[in-house]
Amino acid sequence: VKLHDLPTPAVVIDADRLQHNLTTMATAHPGASLRPHVKAHKCTELAAMQHAQGHHSFTCATPREVIGMAEAGWGDDLLLANEVLDPLRLSAMARAQQSARITIAVDSADTIDAAARAGLREVVVDVNVGLPRCGCRPDEAGHIADLARGRGLLVRGVMGYEGHLMMVDDREEHRTKVDDAIDRLLEAHEQVGGDVVSAGGTGTYHLHQLRRRVTEIQAGSYALMDTHYARLGHPFQQACFVIGTVVSATPKYAVADVGLKAMGMDHGNPSVETLDGNGADVWFLSDEHVTFVPHTGVAHVGDRIRVVPAHIDPTMAMHEVAWLVMGDQVIDRWPIDLRGW
Amino acid sequence: VKLHDLPTPAVVIDADRLQHNLTTMATAHPGASLRPHVKAHKCTELAAMQHAQGHHSFTCATPREVIGMAEAGWGDDLLLANEVLDPLRLSAMARAQQSARITIAVDSADTIDAAARAGLREVVVDVNVGLPRCGCRPDEAGHIADLARGRGLLVRGVMGYEGHLMMVDDREEHRTKVDDAIDRLLEAHEQVGGDVVSAGGTGTYHLHQLRRRVTEIQAGSYALMDTHYARLGHPFQQACFVIGTVVSATPKYAVADVGLKAMGMDHGNPSVETLDGNGADVWFLSDEHVTFVPHTGVAHVGDRIRVVPAHIDPTMAMHEVAWLVMGDQVIDRWPIDLRGW
Repeated sequence: VKLHDLPTPAVVIDADRLQHNLTTMATAHPGASLRPHVKAHKCTELAAMQHAQGHHSFTCATPREVIGMAEAGWGDDLLLANEVLDPLRLSAMARAQQSARITIAVDSADTIDAAARAGLREVVVDVNVGLPRCGCRPDEAGHIADLARGRGLLVRGVMGYEGHLMMVDDREEHRTKVDDAIDRLLEAHEQVGGDVVSAGGTGTYHLHQLRRRVTEIQAGSYALMDTHYARLGHPFQQACFVIGTVVSATPKYAVADVGLKAMGMDHGNPSVETLDGNGADVWFLSDEHVTFVPHTGVAHVGDRIRVVPAHIDPTMAMHEVAWLVMGDQVIDRWPIDLRGW
Repeated sequence: VKLHDLPTPAVVIDADRLQHNLTTMATAHPGASLRPHVKAHKCTELAAMQHAQGHHSFTCATPREVIGMAEAGWGDDLLLANEVLDPLRLSAMARAQQSARITIAVDSADTIDAAARAGLREVVVDVNVGLPRCGCRPDEAGHIADLARGRGLLVRGVMGYEGHLMMVDDREEHRTKVDDAIDRLLEAHEQVGGDVVSAGGTGTYHLHQLRRRVTEIQAGSYALMDTHYARLGHPFQQACFVIGTVVSATPKYAVADVGLKAMGMDHGNPSVETLDGNGADVWFLSDEHVTFVPHTGVAHVGDRIRVVPAHIDPTMAMHEVAWLVMGDQVIDRWPIDLRGW
């Protein structure tokens, strides 16, 4: 099958670029010092390639990601970096402990209680390091750890996600702010104990490489990338596109079949380029269409385009399948099998 | 099952409000004068309720919506209001003609050729009435119709979507602009012929009710609604919510498990309210979370919230199932079975 034969909209992954990204990150953070986040791709076949790079521990954002990874055989060490209260999903993860090692984040008495009742065995204390989302205060972390141990849970350490610091432009400011955030995490870790100090993402992986103050980073987007992370100028290549077909064209603009139901829109519009690499002005996306003007002039009905996501994570979650390609040859079909909750 | 027992994030449809919306629209546009657009809900069970209101013709945006509606038995008269070139999907729709009447929009020689080759039988000419998307110029419509007839296709009439005019605030300006757009469609119809003049949406249904210049309108969002269409002050009620659970809370803000993978974000942030109807300030959404501050003060871990979509169509497309509720009683489970392409 050729790229041109795929039904569109089609998520396409460039095998060479993916391999480049995986190798680049594995060089910076080899083995267990990277805990790849599967929420960015939701695809066990892609996780298998990360496993082959030597990363045997994974980060997940939902119970379904955890259970899907366990069922696929990649359950050596799964961290659910999220708080869950739902007893049915917690119990399903507890059952998956028969074949997988599962650790869940907790940040309150309620989340500890829910995990313990369901029969989960291991937790990390989620610490707020500045992003207003989940996580306890650093000075509460010791108390949370004590509560967890009091319920018979093994406390493996701490995690904290400096998500508010992925996009700081000034290098010195970026380093200082991330250092401050990790200071908070290490302050918590002193009270909590355990082997795990988990943090970081694609936007800060290089700072953690410089100063190994955390034991592992949770990067996910580096594998496929998007236009948002591309602005940082890191050595990762855009490896994922949504291929569209021009279904209507005028001398002034063209319309292709990649709409906002095929594209995560929270980071704004995607970019559009022709298959030979020329850019385009994107006018707007509606449910099933993108209206655009190629820089090189008129597009024709039947032409194919590449749409580059502004945010890879929600884009992958909208599709059932990704096609692995080399050049214009389709070499594999990967189900996006970790969707949903 | 009670509302409080549903695993979250959960799409919930209020049965009474849905019924109110369906009845209100069926009074304004009874029977065949409404061709409900299934792209807004992607749910054959909801289409069944629209069918029970007396609407036996439906609008679709994707081949999968067409085929799913045919398989569910609602294939009396399905219009794919979109251009398609993919031969496999066109052939699949042609096969579905054994049990369903299927009409597809065309706006070019290429789309006519693709439809004819696949064995489709009926088309409408898609006319651009001002929105820069699909559709031929009004003065080309006669030629397009001739091309279609030359390929043995039955031309049922014209369609044109005044999507750029859904949100005009000034009433007089709104009426005038919609009249001008429909002038363009009727100019095309004079050249094309046929029984069908299809246009309109939830934002313009009342103008088409006043002046019956089109034979049918294609509204979809009216059934479930969103905060965007709610601004128009039409007599439709918000019938769809995504229920979330507070998984982490501080004295300053709370975090619930409804993130941007559960919520169409192209129209901006959703609204958040407590189950007793009080509002909240929404700070931001990330992949799996919304961070918010309830107007009535602190939220607690385990509290449930309602998240009201800013755009219903992509929100429905992100979920596998919707739960029908009356009060806090869950009365049915509806698969969102028309997702994908």
